[in-house]
Amino acid sequence: MQLLNSKSRVLSGSRQQAAAKAVRVAPAGRRSAVRVSAAVHLDFNTKVFQKEHAKFGPSEEYIVRGGRDKYPLLKEAFKGIKKISVIGWGSQAPAQAQNLRDSIAEAGMDIKVAIGLRPDSPSWAEAEACGFSKKDGTLGEVFEQISSSDFVILLISDAAQAKLYPRILAAMKPGATLGLSHGFLLGVMRNDGVDFRKDINVVLVAPKGMGPSVRRLYEQGKSVNGAGINCSFAIQQDATGQAADIAIGWAIGVGAPFAFPTTLESEYKSDIYGERCVLLGAVHGIVEALFRRYTRQGMSDEEAFKQSVESITGPISRTISTKGMLSVYNSFSDADKKIFEQAYSASYKPALDICFEIYEDVASGNEIKSVVQAVQRFDRFPMGKIDQTYMWKVGQKVRAERDESKIPVNPFTAGVYVAVMMATVEVLREKGHPFSEICNESIIEAVDSLNPYMHARGVAFMVDNCSYTARLGSRKWAPRFDYIIEQQAFVEIDSGKPADKEVMAEFLKHPVHAALATCSSMRPSVDISVGGENSNVGVGAGAARTEFRSTAAKV
Amino acid sequence: MQLLNSKSRVLSGSRQQAAAKAVRVAPAGRRSAVRVSAAVHLDFNTKVFQKEHAKFGPSEEYIVRGGRDKYPLLKEAFKGIKKISVIGWGSQAPAQAQNLRDSIAEAGMDIKVAIGLRPDSPSWAEAEACGFSKKDGTLGEVFEQISSSDFVILLISDAAQAKLYPRILAAMKPGATLGLSHGFLLGVMRNDGVDFRKDINVVLVAPKGMGPSVRRLYEQGKSVNGAGINCSFAIQQDATGQAADIAIGWAIGVGAPFAFPTTLESEYKSDIYGERCVLLGAVHGIVEALFRRYTRQGMSDEEAFKQSVESITGPISRTISTKGMLSVYNSFSDADKKIFEQAYSASYKPALDICFEIYEDVASGNEIKSVVQAVQRFDRFPMGKIDQTYMWKVGQKVRAERDESKIPVNPFTAGVYVAVMMATVEVLREKGHPFSEICNESIIEAVDSLNPYMHARGVAFMVDNCSYTARLGSRKWAPRFDYIIEQQAFVEIDSGKPADKEVMAEFLKHPVHAALATCSSMRPSVDISVGGENSNVGVGAGAARTEFRSTAAKV
Repeated sequence: MQLLNSKSRVLSGSRQQAAAKAVRVAPAGRRSAVRVSAAVHLDFNTKVFQKEHAKFGPSEEYIVRGGRDKYPLLKEAFKGIKKISVIGWGSQAPAQAQNLRDSIAEAGMDIKVAIGLRPDSPSWAEAEACGFSKKDGTLGEVFEQISSSDFVILLISDAAQAKLYPRILAAMKPGATLGLSHGFLLGVMRNDGVDFRKDINVVLVAPKGMGPSVRRLYEQGKSVNGAGINCSFAIQQDATGQAADIAIGWAIGVGAPFAFPTTLESEYKSDIYGERCVLLGAVHGIVEALFRRYTRQGMSDEEAFKQSVESITGPISRTISTKGMLSVYNSFSDADKKIFEQAYSASYKPALDICFEIYEDVASGNEIKSVVQAVQRFDRFPMGKIDQTYMWKVGQKVRAERDESKIPVNPFTAGVYVAVMMATVEVLREKGHPFSEICNESIIEAVDSLNPYMHARGVAFMVDNCSYTARLGSRKWAPRFDYIIEQQAFVEIDSGKPADKEVMAEFLKHPVHAALATCSSMRPSVDISVGGENSNVGVGAGAARTEFRSTAAKV
Repeated sequence: MQLLNSKSRVLSGSRQQAAAKAVRVAPAGRRSAVRVSAAVHLDFNTKVFQKEHAKFGPSEEYIVRGGRDKYPLLKEAFKGIKKISVIGWGSQAPAQAQNLRDSIAEAGMDIKVAIGLRPDSPSWAEAEACGFSKKDGTLGEVFEQISSSDFVILLISDAAQAKLYPRILAAMKPGATLGLSHGFLLGVMRNDGVDFRKDINVVLVAPKGMGPSVRRLYEQGKSVNGAGINCSFAIQQDATGQAADIAIGWAIGVGAPFAFPTTLESEYKSDIYGERCVLLGAVHGIVEALFRRYTRQGMSDEEAFKQSVESITGPISRTISTKGMLSVYNSFSDADKKIFEQAYSASYKPALDICFEIYEDVASGNEIKSVVQAVQRFDRFPMGKIDQTYMWKVGQKVRAERDESKIPVNPFTAGVYVAVMMATVEVLREKGHPFSEICNESIIEAVDSLNPYMHARGVAFMVDNCSYTARLGSRKWAPRFDYIIEQQAFVEIDSGKPADKEVMAEFLKHPVHAALATCSSMRPSVDISVGGENSNVGVGAGAARTEFRSTAAKV
């Protein structure tokens, strides 16, 4: 463990987790809460890649710059690795496996990239169509691949990981590396009171976009400079001294223009939390409340839908995506600013209340335990759809007749939505997450991935194409946001209470605005487009991980 | 451990818990579920009292009959006890302390019954007004009383128990008895991974009514034969061999006409579960959904409130209370039966889905952990009220103008409500709870205690006068019932799908109807009346424990 300078800590190997708990993330325990010191960096030991400083608002973080010119470094980063197995064929696996295979070939290396599938998986044909084959050993049964690989990238669903991890860990070669794209498994293992085998590396790379985008932008990156999906990475356990370089090599190999450090713990907490808040759960809950409010006030159903859902998933999201949250506010007339202020300041604290509850339910292991329990009830209680209610039938009609240029930017809707987004941000900040992670899990995923899909295909389609973990979370927390916004925010507004100046002042000066600008400057230079009503292009999304199966696999 | 006959098991001492886990209640673990065998009794070892068999539908349970003629037995049951301290002065403490004091005097015994309060408690004056005094040692500081007592009845709030239990347990005399009226503390200690001291008895007596009723019916019992509130009792740990008799003596001493055995685990699970389901959470959620549905269908706001809330808290509850659930159904015309059937059969499974989720979140410790975490956030996020929304303002007006004789019995509302009640029942049955407990925690508490209060004072008053555990649970789960009933039940009904004959057949032949009839025959012979709009009479209720403070204490 090496101290780089007085302001940073090197977190490597299995100590990273302990140190992260001590200095960054509030512990799961019930009687304490630790505030992060912004001066403490999340650091890592790379012998191969170049660390850079990036300023995210008030805090600095180390990052690593990727790009095609870095592929030659993979030779050193992946030294000793002869075979990489990608397990599963969901949203991420086809993209990551193909990107890694291409990058490794580009670097002139001789590493076999293989796919591991269940014997009864419907995906064998599709994997073969992508060039993986039984004959040359690049396509085979899960546990055969695991036991013969030096680097196992586990991209099966959360539920399958929770069920299979004891066998998977047992099958791995000593000194091999386990790669995860989500820290969920760590949460499951903590609830079970067990730890990873000490003789393997455990690392994470979490691309900040869904699999199809990871593949498509990688391909565009061959011609467009800077195309690719950014990734966070983490080193949970370093048995060989090579774990950090394997993790960063993996991130760069799948096409990340930039890679941001995190920990498995920080990743799973912020990810599971974010999808329960503004990414999925909260946005669903507040549009239900807004739609009810507007119709009760006398708007037609169609108009109410436009002024609530359409306003958020369309113009408000686009403005935040390109110019940030402050621009939404600044774009309003003085009269509309007043409406925004009242809606924002009445909604912020109730939303913060629920966001804290969600975070602490995630951090304490409750949410993961509930997901595991729910999945075990699926045979008897399969998850129902959410889109057949009156409001979403109205939405179908509104989308069919949509004139994109006429979607209103409702200042009341904007106030409620931005308040919920800021509440999502603020809890992560108070719990000590790095700003690169905060911006991704609270804002960028929402306005660049999820809201555009909801805009194109409806909320239900979005929710129904996410991971079980995300879908269950959305069902659980959407109604909580709905009720608290109606019971507290709307009641306060209707009582004529003026906007809280202090809450507004905090919003205007919040450090997340500057951090978001930094993140934006690192974003892919190619737009992540959304497929139309009958397309699978770009279905699903990063943080709210999808159980996406491509068209080919469905046939 | 003594085997009475081939069909029963004696559960006593610390083995009770283990045996209960093995044979009765599904374990908290995530991969198994145990079905109860109805032939297995929950048994106990009493040397003093008389066990009787009672038939609750298909199953038999041991019970103990109380009454004033049993008070002389307290001498033997409480042998060796010189001082009983009741800790706290909430809803239960004034009632239980005074009843015990009176019963002990009646039996001509010389046991001091004392009250323990925080030094800064506002209740000193009221306790003195009830005849407890510092001078004779029957009123004093909590830990002084605990360390000087042979029997400590702990009636402080759940949150205070969670915080103070290490000190409380440490202060107790070896060989003393800890009495609880709720198993919540066991859940907290399990989450903390700790156990009770092995050198004390731990028992439970849970009166099936709120404190003021426990006192009032005890006083009426002096003249009216059979008046008094029934109790469940449990022996968690028997260090002295006397625990069962102390527990039963306590139940009879506070005035129980009948006492039913349970375990701490079974009690806290069914209690915390029940208040999240039909007792509080579910009833709130479904009336929100019904009110919205009826207004959207064109009813006036007032009419929609009558057809939903008023219908449930008034005539439907009264019918169930006096004649059972089947009578609600049988009272309808053929046409209305069809409406009931459709509403019932569409609502039952979605409600069952949420009920299972709640039960498993309670059983796994998640709910208790969430409550403990929420209470720690109260300084920053005090619980808001729920009664200021549009619908509950309408309710205020409707109640003010109410003509009790004109409240409609809406068959659709009845179908949804009874379905949710049956779902609450069925999960407890599948999880192996005894029928005496099922009937109390799912039906009797609802129709005899909570719904009458909601009818008299409004839902918000009811919710806001319950324990934090109940209030938090209601806030958490009400919106889940609301959403799932709208998303699944109403959608199915509106699609024109006919009623599910199998679901209806199961309802009509369910064993709970016979069990409820048995319970009804054991109910107090005096009505539990409800105070008016500005009265504190009968505020709060048993299972959904209240944080009730009497008028005197408030001054």
